[in-house]
Amino acid sequence: METECTIAAVATPAGEGGIAVIRISGKRAVDICGKVVKAKKPLSQYKARRAIYASIFEGDKFIDDVIVTLYRSPASYTGEDVVEISCHGSTYIAQLIINLLIKNGAEPAQPGEFTKRAFLNGKMDLAQAEAVADLIKAKTESSRRVAAMQLKGGLSKKLSEMREQLIKVMSLIELELDFSEEDIEFASREKVLKLIERIKEELEYLLQNYRRGRICRDGINMVITGLPNVGKSSILNCLVQRERAIVTETPGTTRDTIEEILDVEGIQVKIIDTAGIRHSGDLIEKEGVKRAKEAVNIADLVIMVLDGSGETGEEETSLIKWLKDKKTEILCVINKTDLPMKKSEEDLNKIIPDLDKVYISAKTEKGIKELIRKITEHALKKGMPGGEEILITRERHKTALQNAVVHLEKAYDSIQKNMSQEFTAFDLRGAAQEIGSITGSITTDQILDNIFNEFCIGK
Amino acid sequence: METECTIAAVATPAGEGGIAVIRISGKRAVDICGKVVKAKKPLSQYKARRAIYASIFEGDKFIDDVIVTLYRSPASYTGEDVVEISCHGSTYIAQLIINLLIKNGAEPAQPGEFTKRAFLNGKMDLAQAEAVADLIKAKTESSRRVAAMQLKGGLSKKLSEMREQLIKVMSLIELELDFSEEDIEFASREKVLKLIERIKEELEYLLQNYRRGRICRDGINMVITGLPNVGKSSILNCLVQRERAIVTETPGTTRDTIEEILDVEGIQVKIIDTAGIRHSGDLIEKEGVKRAKEAVNIADLVIMVLDGSGETGEEETSLIKWLKDKKTEILCVINKTDLPMKKSEEDLNKIIPDLDKVYISAKTEKGIKELIRKITEHALKKGMPGGEEILITRERHKTALQNAVVHLEKAYDSIQKNMSQEFTAFDLRGAAQEIGSITGSITTDQILDNIFNEFCIGK
Repeated sequence: METECTIAAVATPAGEGGIAVIRISGKRAVDICGKVVKAKKPLSQYKARRAIYASIFEGDKFIDDVIVTLYRSPASYTGEDVVEISCHGSTYIAQLIINLLIKNGAEPAQPGEFTKRAFLNGKMDLAQAEAVADLIKAKTESSRRVAAMQLKGGLSKKLSEMREQLIKVMSLIELELDFSEEDIEFASREKVLKLIERIKEELEYLLQNYRRGRICRDGINMVITGLPNVGKSSILNCLVQRERAIVTETPGTTRDTIEEILDVEGIQVKIIDTAGIRHSGDLIEKEGVKRAKEAVNIADLVIMVLDGSGETGEEETSLIKWLKDKKTEILCVINKTDLPMKKSEEDLNKIIPDLDKVYISAKTEKGIKELIRKITEHALKKGMPGGEEILITRERHKTALQNAVVHLEKAYDSIQKNMSQEFTAFDLRGAAQEIGSITGSITTDQILDNIFNEFCIGK
Repeated sequence: METECTIAAVATPAGEGGIAVIRISGKRAVDICGKVVKAKKPLSQYKARRAIYASIFEGDKFIDDVIVTLYRSPASYTGEDVVEISCHGSTYIAQLIINLLIKNGAEPAQPGEFTKRAFLNGKMDLAQAEAVADLIKAKTESSRRVAAMQLKGGLSKKLSEMREQLIKVMSLIELELDFSEEDIEFASREKVLKLIERIKEELEYLLQNYRRGRICRDGINMVITGLPNVGKSSILNCLVQRERAIVTETPGTTRDTIEEILDVEGIQVKIIDTAGIRHSGDLIEKEGVKRAKEAVNIADLVIMVLDGSGETGEEETSLIKWLKDKKTEILCVINKTDLPMKKSEEDLNKIIPDLDKVYISAKTEKGIKELIRKITEHALKKGMPGGEEILITRERHKTALQNAVVHLEKAYDSIQKNMSQEFTAFDLRGAAQEIGSITGSITTDQILDNIFNEFCIGK
């Protein structure tokens, strides 16, 4: 399947650099480029995959010296004819060449349109296309690794195998329907039940690890919480100062929630510092506390800060209870150890017997190393994929697999209850379709638009 | 001349994009890349200038799918062996590959080091290398055009011709020295004088146009000045609003000087809005006025704003006189034409008989189109190079040509005064050397460092 128009876009990021690369894809790619590229011979006479030294001209006007490479359909990224032009790395010049190509019949590419065409032309499946977007956005080792595995087809292969097995069994059962009067059983029900069980287990395993996959891709949200004035912001400052691998700094959209991004041994950790949580009668600093609580709800790891130099009051115990009810992983930090301690280890073992504890002083930085070690341990456990490990990382995949599991359960049920083969076949097909929607064996324009709109232009 | 180490850098701008390109140059380029690139056959067995589909591995760990292209010395950008790797356009992945190359023996490239090597290996001369930097920084048509002409060797060719003629004559005159006892004249003095005159004229022509070249490259500084409250900032707002081609907005480093960049038909116009100039006895708003005056000193075009609805007082006349003494081009804008006019055309012809005038109302936007037309006219006149026009654009070139002119004058003088040939030869050599320093026929490490430090890394 080849789309009508020929598209062009700058494939490299905007800004000043040594070179910028322009990509053109479509039936008329070589033809259109031939109108503006002057080389020793006409562009169409060059062999594919040769770096051709050439110049760009607008009529008689020299624009830039470039290197041009042709790729001939189907042996290209998109599966169509593709031309890549490397020009001098000025945004102005790259845009000038794009405008020139558009004047000569190309159309500006939409976000992700090159990869979308690659998918439509069968160069990669949908899960791999999604992996391309993830790879481009990868900012840490864990996100790169999980995307690379998906791009290599790890997930796709696993899913395709399951889908094929389901389709095979389903076909046999449908065949039985044709011979229904003869009461023949092409597929042993015992074997079918075993197959369904095995595939269901595999899907559930993938689903169980969805959160881990999501963390590999997007990183961990680590929320620092506690009563007011226990030293939460000082701890944030300690972590940020000490950790040299800060990659970005996002000023909070709210005045009272500060976010910092760290790269902790290859896993992105977003530290969210929140307002102190306090219920002072009816007079609560409502908005700050509301946001602090919302942050805890999205946390993968909560750093609960207690003031070791303060007595444990009713507010503290109720905060601890509230946090523990959330079932999120909690690391308890007892701060202000530079002051005389009012919380004995015995006290703490009473109120938080089951929590991992670190004693620190944000003021003297004593214990901060240990805190970082614990955070790293948590992050690695949650967020670093094994060498060849296959993980799902997207809500879309999760939903499809959950639907597939429901279908499999129904199919299993229909066999056990000796219901008509039609019911079993229907649900086996449903499961196969759900699994197939991940790799794009079955898809809709809506799904495609959602997926490719998150790409940058030029990929 | 080949430098020892093999260098590597990301050649595309930082950020997310479809692809990033990594460039490696040096004797060991293919060898080092071969250690991390896995393709169908060993990298060194591929022919040059082929787009090779390959993967990057760190040991057993898959990093990314890439396209690799080899260039063999001397047929490469730098003149050395060069490898270009196109990977997925994530800064993280590009940096990962750079780190891998460094682990395997490459060194991180310094700013402009690829182009410096291209110069050292005779792939381009120094003026062309400078043009590469200018081309990358080009943000408008005039800057692209003047850089492209210089890259194509227009300036270099012109200078080389002059230099060769001077060297030829100088050699003949030096030869005479060897035969000095015989009183032979190899070079007709009449012809030598004519040659010197002709070359001096050409150099002076280039020097005269230096300011124009500088404007082509860097654009025009247009300063809006006038007494306080004549409507300077309103005019700035009108211009910025109306002109859709705003490319950047630089908030003033001082509170009272605002800068805006416009692209006026291919020429960059930096509009500098300044504090009103006023000498109220001893009490002057000193700093603001000082900066406003400094801005006028670097202006290529001054927009002098007068309040048409106000009487002409002593302050106004003294400001006009001060501006006119600057000899900068002035466009006089009579503002507030929506109010009853107190300055008649007759009055204005008295105080500014010789200035180009535009009547406007920044409030109603009457006359703004005409103002833009006038500014465009000024900009095009000053800043758009003709098709094949050769211009010098750098202080370095200007200084060298000025020095060459001085040498030529001395040489001319020495012939006219019948001084010993040694003097003439000395100055002819001096002129040739100065001219040669532009293309880098003669150069020092210091000059090279100055030039290449202004490059980005990766070019």
